[in-house]
Amino acid sequence: MKPTPTSRPEPAPLLAFGAHPDDIEFGCGGVIVKETRTGRAAHFVICSRGEAASHGTPAQRVIEANRSAVLLGARLEFIELDGDAHLDVRVAHAIKLATIIRRVRPGIVLAPSLVENQHPDHPRLGQLVRDACRLARYGGVKELRRLPAHAIEQLLYYAVTPEAEPVSTTPVLIDVSAPDVLQAWTAAMEAHASQAAARHYVELQLTRARLRGLRAGCGHAIALFPNDPPVLDSLAHAGRGARQF
Amino acid sequence: MKPTPTSRPEPAPLLAFGAHPDDIEFGCGGVIVKETRTGRAAHFVICSRGEAASHGTPAQRVIEANRSAVLLGARLEFIELDGDAHLDVRVAHAIKLATIIRRVRPGIVLAPSLVENQHPDHPRLGQLVRDACRLARYGGVKELRRLPAHAIEQLLYYAVTPEAEPVSTTPVLIDVSAPDVLQAWTAAMEAHASQAAARHYVELQLTRARLRGLRAGCGHAIALFPNDPPVLDSLAHAGRGARQF
Amino acid sequence: MKPTPTSRPEPAPLLAFGAHPDDIEFGCGGVIVKETRTGRAAHFVICSRGEAASHGTPAQRVIEANRSAVLLGARLEFIELDGDAHLDVRVAHAIKLATIIRRVRPGIVLAPSLVENQHPDHPRLGQLVRDACRLARYGGVKELRRLPAHAIEQLLYYAVTPEAEPVSTTPVLIDVSAPDVLQAWTAAMEAHASQAAARHYVELQLTRARLRGLRAGCGHAIALFPNDPPVLDSLAHAGRGARQF
Amino acid sequence: MKPTPTSRPEPAPLLAFGAHPDDIEFGCGGVIVKETRTGRAAHFVICSRGEAASHGTPAQRVIEANRSAVLLGARLEFIELDGDAHLDVRVAHAIKLATIIRRVRPGIVLAPSLVENQHPDHPRLGQLVRDACRLARYGGVKELRRLPAHAIEQLLYYAVTPEAEPVSTTPVLIDVSAPDVLQAWTAAMEAHASQAAARHYVELQLTRARLRGLRAGCGHAIALFPNDPPVLDSLAHAGRGARQF
Amino acid sequence: MKPTPTSRPEPAPLLAFGAHPDDIEFGCGGVIVKETRTGRAAHFVICSRGEAASHGTPAQRVIEANRSAVLLGARLEFIELDGDAHLDVRVAHAIKLATIIRRVRPGIVLAPSLVENQHPDHPRLGQLVRDACRLARYGGVKELRRLPAHAIEQLLYYAVTPEAEPVSTTPVLIDVSAPDVLQAWTAAMEAHASQAAARHYVELQLTRARLRGLRAGCGHAIALFPNDPPVLDSLAHAGRGARQF
Amino acid sequence: MKPTPTSRPEPAPLLAFGAHPDDIEFGCGGVIVKETRTGRAAHFVICSRGEAASHGTPAQRVIEANRSAVLLGARLEFIELDGDAHLDVRVAHAIKLATIIRRVRPGIVLAPSLVENQHPDHPRLGQLVRDACRLARYGGVKELRRLPAHAIEQLLYYAVTPEAEPVSTTPVLIDVSAPDVLQAWTAAMEAHASQAAARHYVELQLTRARLRGLRAGCGHAIALFPNDPPVLDSLAHAGRGARQF
Repeated sequence: MKPTPTSRPEPAPLLAFGAHPDDIEFGCGGVIVKETRTGRAAHFVICSRGEAASHGTPAQRVIEANRSAVLLGARLEFIELDGDAHLDVRVAHAIKLATIIRRVRPGIVLAPSLVENQHPDHPRLGQLVRDACRLARYGGVKELRRLPAHAIEQLLYYAVTPEAEPVSTTPVLIDVSAPDVLQAWTAAMEAHASQAAARHYVELQLTRARLRGLRAGCGHAIALFPNDPPVLDSLAHAGRGARQF
Repeated sequence: MKPTPTSRPEPAPLLAFGAHPDDIEFGCGGVIVKETRTGRAAHFVICSRGEAASHGTPAQRVIEANRSAVLLGARLEFIELDGDAHLDVRVAHAIKLATIIRRVRPGIVLAPSLVENQHPDHPRLGQLVRDACRLARYGGVKELRRLPAHAIEQLLYYAVTPEAEPVSTTPVLIDVSAPDVLQAWTAAMEAHASQAAARHYVELQLTRARLRGLRAGCGHAIALFPNDPPVLDSLAHAGRGARQF
Repeated sequence: MKPTPTSRPEPAPLLAFGAHPDDIEFGCGGVIVKETRTGRAAHFVICSRGEAASHGTPAQRVIEANRSAVLLGARLEFIELDGDAHLDVRVAHAIKLATIIRRVRPGIVLAPSLVENQHPDHPRLGQLVRDACRLARYGGVKELRRLPAHAIEQLLYYAVTPEAEPVSTTPVLIDVSAPDVLQAWTAAMEAHASQAAARHYVELQLTRARLRGLRAGCGHAIALFPNDPPVLDSLAHAGRGARQF
Repeated sequence: MKPTPTSRPEPAPLLAFGAHPDDIEFGCGGVIVKETRTGRAAHFVICSRGEAASHGTPAQRVIEANRSAVLLGARLEFIELDGDAHLDVRVAHAIKLATIIRRVRPGIVLAPSLVENQHPDHPRLGQLVRDACRLARYGGVKELRRLPAHAIEQLLYYAVTPEAEPVSTTPVLIDVSAPDVLQAWTAAMEAHASQAAARHYVELQLTRARLRGLRAGCGHAIALFPNDPPVLDSLAHAGRGARQF
Repeated sequence: MKPTPTSRPEPAPLLAFGAHPDDIEFGCGGVIVKETRTGRAAHFVICSRGEAASHGTPAQRVIEANRSAVLLGARLEFIELDGDAHLDVRVAHAIKLATIIRRVRPGIVLAPSLVENQHPDHPRLGQLVRDACRLARYGGVKELRRLPAHAIEQLLYYAVTPEAEPVSTTPVLIDVSAPDVLQAWTAAMEAHASQAAARHYVELQLTRARLRGLRAGCGHAIALFPNDPPVLDSLAHAGRGARQF
Repeated sequence: MKPTPTSRPEPAPLLAFGAHPDDIEFGCGGVIVKETRTGRAAHFVICSRGEAASHGTPAQRVIEANRSAVLLGARLEFIELDGDAHLDVRVAHAIKLATIIRRVRPGIVLAPSLVENQHPDHPRLGQLVRDACRLARYGGVKELRRLPAHAIEQLLYYAVTPEAEPVSTTPVLIDVSAPDVLQAWTAAMEAHASQAAARHYVELQLTRARLRGLRAGCGHAIALFPNDPPVLDSLAHAGRGARQF
C-alpha cells in the first residue's frame, strides 16, 4: 500500500545476525519484539544450524528457530559459513554478509559482541558483521557490484551472555518491561526447547534483564552496545540516565 | 501562560555548571543554543569570576559572561566556592550545588568532565556536580530539607578542551551545523573577548567541532559524555552512528 | 579455652567497614555468614547512622544494624567521621581507621569499592580503608604508636550495588548457595526494614547473586575484588574458573 | 600403588601448552615443579620444534625439551600445527588441541598469554587453547565425538616475557622460593642450552621472579593470569595480598 | 658523494607500509616530508591498487601514488597480498613483508594502527607489519634465509583517520608547521585526486593536524603511536610536553 | 662565566619533588646522575622528613638525604606540607609548589606517579605537582604574582616501587648502564642507610632496573612516565624501541 503524504515513513528494517539458531533470541529477543510491535520489519540471518551443540539436532534447531522468529514477528534465513563451532574470520564471509546487507538495506544492524572470552563463533561473527557493514558501502568491491551500495544507520552489539558484555563501551538500555513484550520474549526463548532445558538459559536471560531493569528503574531492560557514537539532533533524545541506586 | 491540552509539555530546564565564566561557552555553547532555540530553558551556574586567569579582570569577565549568556538564550548566576584556581573537593560545596539543583529542578545537567589532566578546577567541579546530583535526591540531608528532593534525568559532561575528553565513555554527538546555531555559538565565545584574544580559543573549539562534524558526516558537532547509560524506549531514538570514514 | 596441640589455629578475624548501617549486609552479607559459620570472628565498623537517607531515623538504623549483625554472627561498632553524605577524604580519618585495624588485628579486611560513580561516601571510605591498611603497618605514625603495628593479609572490596563493581580487577567469587547461608543473608538484609522496603534492595542483591551464581555454575555467588594480587602456595588453591556459559 | 581409603584423591593432571620447546619452562617452569612435587601429574604439549629460531636445530631442541621435562617431572608430546613462526589461527587447530584436552582430562590448563605484542605464535596459541577448552565441553563437535566431553577447572595464562603480561587481569602469584624448586626450574631452563646461551634468557626469568618475589614478600614468585574469575568456597583460600612496598 | 670522516652518518631509511595507495599520505604524509627533507631516504610499500574504493580506477590510483611519492621525496613499490578490501591475516603475508624489511633495512618503520574499528585492511596490515618486524630478526625462518636478519629501531603506527588513533598509547607528536612541509604534504594528498574530491579527505587531515598543533602549541602536528617504549640516552631528547590548554 | 658564542646553552634545570627523603633516589636516582653528569642542574624538593617511617629519625633522614643529594650532584631543600603520612590534597599546597617552580624555573619536572595503590603521600604529591605546573603558568593567581609566570617543558612521573608504574601510559626508558652512573646511583640509595637496611630496598630498585635493561637491550634502565605527549621536531629523536624479547 502506497503511504499517503501525511503517513509516517516506515522505519528501515532491522537486520540481526546470529551465529547459532538461538543467539538473537537469548541475547536481545526482547528488543526485537519491541521493534516489530511498533511496525519495524525484522530480518534474522542465522549462520549455522547449531550442529555442534550438546543438545538438539540441526533439524530440531531449524524448527525451533522458525517458531521463535514467528513469535518475535521476524523473518528468518539460514546461511552457510563454516558451520557451528568452526567459524573462521575470512574476508569471503564478510562479503557474503555484505551482500545480505545490500539486499535487506537495514537501518539498524544487530550482531554478537566482540568480546573474545565467549563461544568463539560469537566474536568472529561480530567482527565479520562489522566489516560487512563497511564493505556494503564501498563502491568498488567487485563481488558486491550487482547490488547498490548501502550505508546502515547504526551497528549495535548484543551480548549472548553477561560474559560477552564489553566493559568500555557505554550501552544503551532498552526497556522491555511491558508484559506483552516480556511474555513474547520468554515464549521465543522457550521455543528453543532443546536449549532452554539445559543449564537455565531462560532464567539466565530473565535474571539479567531484571537486574538491568532494577538498576535502570524499570521492570526489565536489555543492554545494546553501539559500534559508533550516536549523532543526535538534540538532547531531547539523549534518554534518561540509568542510575536507580 | 497555561498550556492548552494539545500543546507539548515544556521540557524540564537544562542546568549547566562552569568553573570559570567562559567554560560552558567554550566547552558546549553550541549545544546550549540548540536547546534554547527549541524552547528549553537554560540556566548557568558559574563558580568563579576567573580571577586567576592571565587575562581579563573579574569585572570584565562578569560582563562578558552575561553578554554571552544572552546570546545563547540562557540565564546566569554566579556563586562563590573557593575562588578561581582554588577549588577544593568538599562535601559542603556539593551540598551548595545540590541546593541549586533542587531549586532549578532540571532535566539535563551539564558539568565539566572528570578527566584529571586539565585545569584542576574543572574535574573537581565535575565531581562536585556528580555528587550534588545524588545528594539532591536523598531525603535526609539536613542542609537540603527545606526544598523537595529532585531526581534529574541525565548528567552529561562537556570537555572544555580536547584533553578533557574521557576515552572510555561513548559520547553522544550533537549536530550544531545549522548556520544560525554556529553563528550564535561563535558570537557567544567571542563575547569573552578577554579570553578569546589569547591562544586561539575560538579557533580551537571550531576546529574541534569541525573535526567531529567531518567524522560524523555533518558540518559541526559537539561531543557530550553521559554519566550513566541512557534508557531508551525503542531503537528509534538510538541515533545514527557517527562513522563517515 | 587454650587450644590443644592438635587443634587448627583460629583464623585471624575479618574486619568489615561500612559507610552506612546496611552497606556491608547488602554488599557482601552472604560472605560474612559463610566466614562466621566456619569459625572466623567478624567485626563491623559502621561510619555513620544513615542520617541522610530518605527513609529511617538514625535510632532505627542503629537497632536494625545491631539485629542484622547478630544474624550474621558479627560484632559491630559505630564510629563518627563526618556524618552520612558528608564524608571527606582526610588523613585524620584514615588514622582513626588504622587505630581500629591495630586494635582488631584482622587477617582479611573488607571495604566498599573505589568506583566513583556511586554514593560518594562509599568510594571515599574505600580509599580511607586502603590507606589505613598501610598506615597500620608503618612504625612511625605518632597517633598510632600506642598500639603495635599490624600488617593485614588481604584487603578485598565489596560493591554495594552493581554500579560499584570495578571492571579491570579480576574478582574472586564466593559461593553462598548453601540454603542456611542464603537464608541468614536474606534475613540480615530484611532486618534493615527501613531500607529494604524501598526500591527493591533485597531483590537487587539476590538477583545479582543469582546471576553471578548462574554464571559460576552454582546457586548464588558474591564477587569480591582484591586490592593486591593473591600469593598462593600452589595451584591447588587457585579455585575453579567461573565460566558456565 | 593403590590409594588406601583414607588417602587424598589425586589431583587432576595439569596440561601445559607451549608454542616452542622452551616456552613453558621459561614462562612458568617454577610453577610446574611445585605442582609435580606435590603429586600432580603434568603433561606438556609442544606445538613446534623451534625451527625458526636463530639458534639450535630442531633435533637439538627436541632433546633439550625432553631433558627439561624430566627435570620438571613432566611428560611431553610434540604436535604439528603450522610450524614455528608460521602459526595461523584456524578452528582446525583448536579442535586438535581440544582432542588432547579430552584425552588428558586436565584440571588446570596453562597457555601462553593473549597479549599481542610478543612472538606472534604465543598469543595465537593462547587463543587456540582458550577456544579448545570450550570446544572440549561441547557435545556435538563431530571431530571430537569419539572422546567424552570434558570441562576443565581453570585456564591460566603464563607470560613468556614481561612484555606478555596482561595489564588488566589480576594475576595469582605462585611462591617458587623453595631452594629445590628454584634449582630445578633453573636447571630446566639451562637444559635449553641452545637458547639459554643467547640474550640472557635465564637471567631474565630469574630477575623477573625475584622482582615479583620481593614485591610479594617471598623469595621468588611467578605470576599466572586466570581466564575466568575463580570461584572459592571461602575466604580461607583467597591468598595473602602481595604488597610488600 | 663519499662522506668525509667528520660528516654525520646518513640515517637508516624509513620504511612505510600502506594498505591502499593514499593511506600513508593521508595518515602521516607530513612526517614523511619532514624526514626526507633532512636527508633520510623513505621507501613506501603499497599493498593494493585501491580497486575496491568507490572512486578511481586502479590505473589512476597507481599514477596518483607515484606522483604523490615524488612530492614527498619517497620511493614506492606495489606488492600483491589479497587485494583491496580482501586482506586476511596470514603468516605468509608477514613473511613477504619481512623479506622487504630485510632488503630495505630500515631504522624506522611506519604502519597503519591496530585499532579495529576502521577499514578492515588497515589493522590487519598493521598486525602483519608488527609480526614482520619480529620475523625479520629471527635467524631460522627458512623463507627469509637468503637475506641477513635485520632488527629495526622503532615501529610507529599512523592513524589514517581519527577513529584509528589508539587511546592507551602515548603518541609522539611531530611538528609539521613549516610552510614548505605543510605545502608539500597538502600537494601530496591532492595528488590523490580521485580520492581527495570525495568526502573532504584533505580537509579532514589538515583539520586534524591543526587541532593537534593548537593543542601542542605549534601550527600543525601529526601523532604517531610507538609500538614499544622508546629508550633514550638522556632527558635532553624527551621532547617538550604538548599541553597548551 | 659568560658563555662564548660557540658554547652550547646550558639546559634548564631539572626539578624533582619527593614526598619522603629517599623517594627520588629510589624511584629515579639513576636518571638524576645521568642528567647532572651532562651539566644539567638538579634541584630536589623534599616534602617531609620521613617522620612516620618504621625506621630512622627525622634528623638521620635529613643527613642521609643531604649526603645522597651530593652523590647525585643535586641541590636539596626541605619544605613543610602536612607531614609524613599526613599529606592531604589542598590547593594551598599546590600553590606552594608552584612558587618553587616559578623560582627554580625548571625545564623538566619529576614527581611521584599518580597510581593510587601505594604510599598515600606519593600519588597526592604527584597530583599537587601536576596542578602546580599549571598554576605556575597562570598569570592571575594572586599568591604567585610576585614571581613571573613560568611554563615548564615536560612533567615526567617516576614510580617509587613497581606497583606505582601506570599501565596505560607509554614510558620513556633512560639507559643508566654506564658503570659510574650505576655506582653513583647505588651509593646514593645506600646513603639512606636507615631505609636501605630494611626490606631489600636497594635490591628492589637494582632488580627492577636490570629487568628493564634486559628488556630494553641495555644493562639497566629506568622508566619515566610523561604527563603529556612529547612534541618532537623529527623522528631522529624518537628513540630506539625497547623490545629485546
